[in-house]
Amino acid sequence: MIIKRKFNPIRVIQYVQKEIIFSLLISLLVWGFYEQKISLVVLPFSISAILGSALAIFIAFRNNSSYGRWWEARTLWGGIVNSSRVLARLIITFTDSHAHQANFEKERSETFKKEMVNYCIAWVHALRLHLRKQENWEELQSFLSWEDFKVLTNSQNKPNFLQLLMGKKIYNAMSNGTLGGFDSFQMEGQLLALANFQGGCERIKNTPLLRQYDFFTRLFLYAFILLLPFSLIGDFTRMEISFLMIPVALIISFVFAILAKVGEVNEDPFENRITDVPLSALCNTIERDLLEMLGQKDLPKKLEAEQGFLF
Amino acid sequence: MIIKRKFNPIRVIQYVQKEIIFSLLISLLVWGFYEQKISLVVLPFSISAILGSALAIFIAFRNNSSYGRWWEARTLWGGIVNSSRVLARLIITFTDSHAHQANFEKERSETFKKEMVNYCIAWVHALRLHLRKQENWEELQSFLSWEDFKVLTNSQNKPNFLQLLMGKKIYNAMSNGTLGGFDSFQMEGQLLALANFQGGCERIKNTPLLRQYDFFTRLFLYAFILLLPFSLIGDFTRMEISFLMIPVALIISFVFAILAKVGEVNEDPFENRITDVPLSALCNTIERDLLEMLGQKDLPKKLEAEQGFLF
Amino acid sequence: MIIKRKFNPIRVIQYVQKEIIFSLLISLLVWGFYEQKISLVVLPFSISAILGSALAIFIAFRNNSSYGRWWEARTLWGGIVNSSRVLARLIITFTDSHAHQANFEKERSETFKKEMVNYCIAWVHALRLHLRKQENWEELQSFLSWEDFKVLTNSQNKPNFLQLLMGKKIYNAMSNGTLGGFDSFQMEGQLLALANFQGGCERIKNTPLLRQYDFFTRLFLYAFILLLPFSLIGDFTRMEISFLMIPVALIISFVFAILAKVGEVNEDPFENRITDVPLSALCNTIERDLLEMLGQKDLPKKLEAEQGFLF
Amino acid sequence: MIIKRKFNPIRVIQYVQKEIIFSLLISLLVWGFYEQKISLVVLPFSISAILGSALAIFIAFRNNSSYGRWWEARTLWGGIVNSSRVLARLIITFTDSHAHQANFEKERSETFKKEMVNYCIAWVHALRLHLRKQENWEELQSFLSWEDFKVLTNSQNKPNFLQLLMGKKIYNAMSNGTLGGFDSFQMEGQLLALANFQGGCERIKNTPLLRQYDFFTRLFLYAFILLLPFSLIGDFTRMEISFLMIPVALIISFVFAILAKVGEVNEDPFENRITDVPLSALCNTIERDLLEMLGQKDLPKKLEAEQGFLF
Amino acid sequence: MIIKRKFNPIRVIQYVQKEIIFSLLISLLVWGFYEQKISLVVLPFSISAILGSALAIFIAFRNNSSYGRWWEARTLWGGIVNSSRVLARLIITFTDSHAHQANFEKERSETFKKEMVNYCIAWVHALRLHLRKQENWEELQSFLSWEDFKVLTNSQNKPNFLQLLMGKKIYNAMSNGTLGGFDSFQMEGQLLALANFQGGCERIKNTPLLRQYDFFTRLFLYAFILLLPFSLIGDFTRMEISFLMIPVALIISFVFAILAKVGEVNEDPFENRITDVPLSALCNTIERDLLEMLGQKDLPKKLEAEQGFLF
Repeated sequence: MIIKRKFNPIRVIQYVQKEIIFSLLISLLVWGFYEQKISLVVLPFSISAILGSALAIFIAFRNNSSYGRWWEARTLWGGIVNSSRVLARLIITFTDSHAHQANFEKERSETFKKEMVNYCIAWVHALRLHLRKQENWEELQSFLSWEDFKVLTNSQNKPNFLQLLMGKKIYNAMSNGTLGGFDSFQMEGQLLALANFQGGCERIKNTPLLRQYDFFTRLFLYAFILLLPFSLIGDFTRMEISFLMIPVALIISFVFAILAKVGEVNEDPFENRITDVPLSALCNTIERDLLEMLGQKDLPKKLEAEQGFLF
Repeated sequence: MIIKRKFNPIRVIQYVQKEIIFSLLISLLVWGFYEQKISLVVLPFSISAILGSALAIFIAFRNNSSYGRWWEARTLWGGIVNSSRVLARLIITFTDSHAHQANFEKERSETFKKEMVNYCIAWVHALRLHLRKQENWEELQSFLSWEDFKVLTNSQNKPNFLQLLMGKKIYNAMSNGTLGGFDSFQMEGQLLALANFQGGCERIKNTPLLRQYDFFTRLFLYAFILLLPFSLIGDFTRMEISFLMIPVALIISFVFAILAKVGEVNEDPFENRITDVPLSALCNTIERDLLEMLGQKDLPKKLEAEQGFLF
Repeated sequence: MIIKRKFNPIRVIQYVQKEIIFSLLISLLVWGFYEQKISLVVLPFSISAILGSALAIFIAFRNNSSYGRWWEARTLWGGIVNSSRVLARLIITFTDSHAHQANFEKERSETFKKEMVNYCIAWVHALRLHLRKQENWEELQSFLSWEDFKVLTNSQNKPNFLQLLMGKKIYNAMSNGTLGGFDSFQMEGQLLALANFQGGCERIKNTPLLRQYDFFTRLFLYAFILLLPFSLIGDFTRMEISFLMIPVALIISFVFAILAKVGEVNEDPFENRITDVPLSALCNTIERDLLEMLGQKDLPKKLEAEQGFLF
Repeated sequence: MIIKRKFNPIRVIQYVQKEIIFSLLISLLVWGFYEQKISLVVLPFSISAILGSALAIFIAFRNNSSYGRWWEARTLWGGIVNSSRVLARLIITFTDSHAHQANFEKERSETFKKEMVNYCIAWVHALRLHLRKQENWEELQSFLSWEDFKVLTNSQNKPNFLQLLMGKKIYNAMSNGTLGGFDSFQMEGQLLALANFQGGCERIKNTPLLRQYDFFTRLFLYAFILLLPFSLIGDFTRMEISFLMIPVALIISFVFAILAKVGEVNEDPFENRITDVPLSALCNTIERDLLEMLGQKDLPKKLEAEQGFLF
Repeated sequence: MIIKRKFNPIRVIQYVQKEIIFSLLISLLVWGFYEQKISLVVLPFSISAILGSALAIFIAFRNNSSYGRWWEARTLWGGIVNSSRVLARLIITFTDSHAHQANFEKERSETFKKEMVNYCIAWVHALRLHLRKQENWEELQSFLSWEDFKVLTNSQNKPNFLQLLMGKKIYNAMSNGTLGGFDSFQMEGQLLALANFQGGCERIKNTPLLRQYDFFTRLFLYAFILLLPFSLIGDFTRMEISFLMIPVALIISFVFAILAKVGEVNEDPFENRITDVPLSALCNTIERDLLEMLGQKDLPKKLEAEQGFLF
């Protein structure tokens, strides 16, 4: 996620360099032909206007959908932050609430709390790696028992497998008395919420924005850039400033190219790019909040934005 | 679902060939008349502009609704993925959680888990066939008992009937002690979710996008293509490039025709076409995830996109 | 609901005949005046352009809202289909699940299942008649006991009264042992859902789309049709094709009139018109699905579209 | 809420009289100056076009938000209708469901049902008065006990206080055996729903649509009306029909003023105006439905629209 | 939040002073050059029109998203008001409902009610300070016990820590008999709702509106203001009123600058600015409502708008 408010102009131009170079070439060509009095290339400006508005419909639609995807992804991860906290709180308060019972064993309960909260954290990191298609699963090792970690590395859908492990741990605790009553019932609510958030993220990851919109947006953008100099040259020549057509065509092409690109980068929010939803920072927040709830003192350092980007 | 980023230009033109041929004929006719000095056919360009924007309103509205339907269908199937996983997890952990009870029978429990998870998979495949109006119900046979499969083939709404069977199996397990306590209560939550997802899919399948919008979009598109050459010919003749009117009319007609078509193909997401929601791939994902949760090793092969299309 | 893809052109024109006749009269008048050299009636075209876009804002807004109402109505009825099925499934599986208990009476249970499912069907039909303000309540008689039917005919809100009866039957079954445990708790979830769907439908039925938007859309449409010939005549006369102004004014008026009408017909989805949400077909689907779940063999015939319309 | 389909033209013009008088004055002035050959006041029409579309963006945004607020308010009250009915049904069926128990007292139960349903009705009326900032609290007296009514008149948030009273009555009934089991649990669901609907209404009441949008819409509207004659006079004088500029400027100003006003009246749906959500009629519906459920025969008269307005 | 309906014109102009000064400078320069007959700087007006509409797309999109964020923030806080009231009502009625039980201790129960309600109020204030990044935590001291306050000041996420404390208090009350049955179960529902509202607020706080849209909106706004005088000067000179170009360029620049700014101020609703969601007033409402429910007589004074602003 981009945090800084000002962008490097060189980076911005590099960003749409293909479109700008294309526009420059066409403009120079049109201007050159015209200077040679080969005047057949003049089109009325209304052609560009009507194409420009058709293009604008496409781009507006694409940008809306694209931003909608990004914001949904962010909202899903916001939900993961909430449900992780609530689940951790339930684990801690429910386990403690049985302290007055006959079969209460303090150490067993403390171990259970710590283990469960660590598995919650592991699930969050696992989902991050799963969505970004990264393979450094050893990051999870410190949160899991050695056996579980070994089995995990062989499973295909790792967050789903961790959910199964967490579910099993809860019912184990129910049967040995660490938990009791309707404790599992309420925890299931948060496991369900987390499973649904994972599903939502996978849906966004696996279903790109409809390719038709993507392809034709780019096609129409290039068609628009191509026709633009032809429909500008007439007016500019009439005013005897034909060479000014070139920068004007460049500026208009730049605006439309940026409009199109800005939507494109938000289409896929889980690709380990600077425009991603900041999964690493969110995982860090969850880890810090949950460990604090356990009463741990030395929390991992807070992840801050670097050079205006937060991953 | 289309996965590839680049489209075959010939396929794209075939896609809107009717509109392009119509536009070509009209343009040639108008140009021919004009060359013969039959000048009555000149219209001001503003006519096209005002019709073009009315058409754009229609198309934008239709494309939005159409994409909304597609994305809702995808989201419903995303929900089916989640709820299937959660239901499978509940089946497994709940059954196992009674292992310490007096009336626990390991074999009965193992059979129950396997059977239930297979019925979940069968329901998902059944819904796919039901929505795509396909008839190869023998695909379900391996997941069901022979008797249930026989009865199923005679029922009219097969996924609904499978839900009834799953419900009955759960209460059967409750009464013989395989399950207990509030297990059925929590599983009902997922059965309910699956029933609602099915209902949502059937709503989209059975209610086409309002025909009025569809019909008048096409009508206005043809009207626009018809009037376009008449309102272009004036400007082009004045510039003495009247023959250039033909490609320009074609390009503008092509852009509007594509805009209209792109929305049309997403209207109905369950028709076994390349623009469908990829039901086969989603069913495959569910089958693999659920079988892995059961501990099965040889999972069915993952369905990948072929030639840029995922079914 | 309209199913057919092609519309009868004569019907379409009848549909907006008032607007077309009005446009024709004004155009002829303007043309006539102009032929008589009474030239004061010329307006610049930009007047029409600016009014046209203001009108377009209104129409787009109205069509969006109107379609939103129709689709919400359809979604509510989709929910009624789901919840009816789920409620029927719960009635059947819950009643059967007590078969192993001491106070189980097979006949009493079978009667209860049949009666409850019939009351579900009666509720759906009652809601249809209630929303369409039809009075043929005798359609419900076969689903209800004679006493309940008599009382029903005297109640003012019949679906609401049927809900009360269904609720009472459930608690009666709880107390005599036909149901038990938390059965009523789960059924209440579906009764609640059905009550909320009813409320949603009544909200749409009783609250027309804001009259201001409706009135001013029509007012501005007529104002636009009125001014259009005045602002077209100038350009057409300059090109010496003044009589061509008449068909062009007619076409543009037709497009805007259709745009306005298309939204209007979907405003009220429960009026027993061809553009209604197909309540009769949905009730038929529910009846067939629920009777099949009861194991009944001779289901009522499936309602199909007639002449391209599904009611 | 406005029910009638046709509006009184004089009322409509009064509605935007300030804008129309302003437009008339400016137009006359501009025309007068121009007739005196003081030609410096001519602006190109494109100025009005660009300002007109910026204004249209503002107005469209404001109307959308404004209608969204109105419809949300209506939906919240639709929810109040549903939840009131469901709560009344639960009160009646739950109380009756204990008729077979040892500690059942018929009179106590009947009193409880009647009292609770009356408190539900009182809550609805209280919310109406609360939202419309009316002070005739004596309307509630007939639904409440004398003591509760006295205390109520001294509380600051009366619907909230009535919720507390209803909650207390339910737990009182739980402890004396009028209710039992999980009855309170299910009723809480509806009390919660009603509390959330109240909160939603208060949010809309207390948070006006962002004042910035309101202020600048009016500012830009007046700026547009001011500049309009200056940019029209050129074209009209060229055609030698300069006096016609005045009615055309008036019509365009009228259209934009109506567009702006139509959104404004729906911004605040709880102000006891003819454009309000019809709270009185909704309260009347709830009162009639709930009293009928109690078996009461002489229901209050149904509130109908008067002169096309429903309050 | 701004309450007043009329804005101070000087403040409004200061608001967009940078854009206006920039526009003034460019206009003067262009006019000056032109007066010196350096005519190369004339551009056709259509350039501004096409850039203006591209800019309008950006601004409309930004304003929509920005208002959406503000309204979501307001809705989340509306939810906090509701859930706080409901939680307080549950605390009071549940505690009182055990008055007939053997182990009831009136003083313990009264202390519990008062303490819990005060912790609810503390949580709300803590969330306000947390979101606005204020540090005057001593405001919370009067609502908390001294020990809890000490620990709180050392925790990093204070509202989250208060939730943990509230959860613990509930289970403590469950075990000593102040509460019982399923009381904790229902209270958890409201704790969960509050946790989710907190998460939603943190999401809006921590995720600024996509910087790309912000940056390019400002860039294109300045580009538009820069090109505007060049494309106006032609028309105005032709009419021999070239100096009038300056105020017209200023007015158009002002309108677009205001359009852009109006959206910008609502992007971040928790910054302790006059355009914030009025957190202080909402906290005050909650405090007053909850203390009244406890039966307290001297409520804190109601926070009113000062000089048209409500914080």
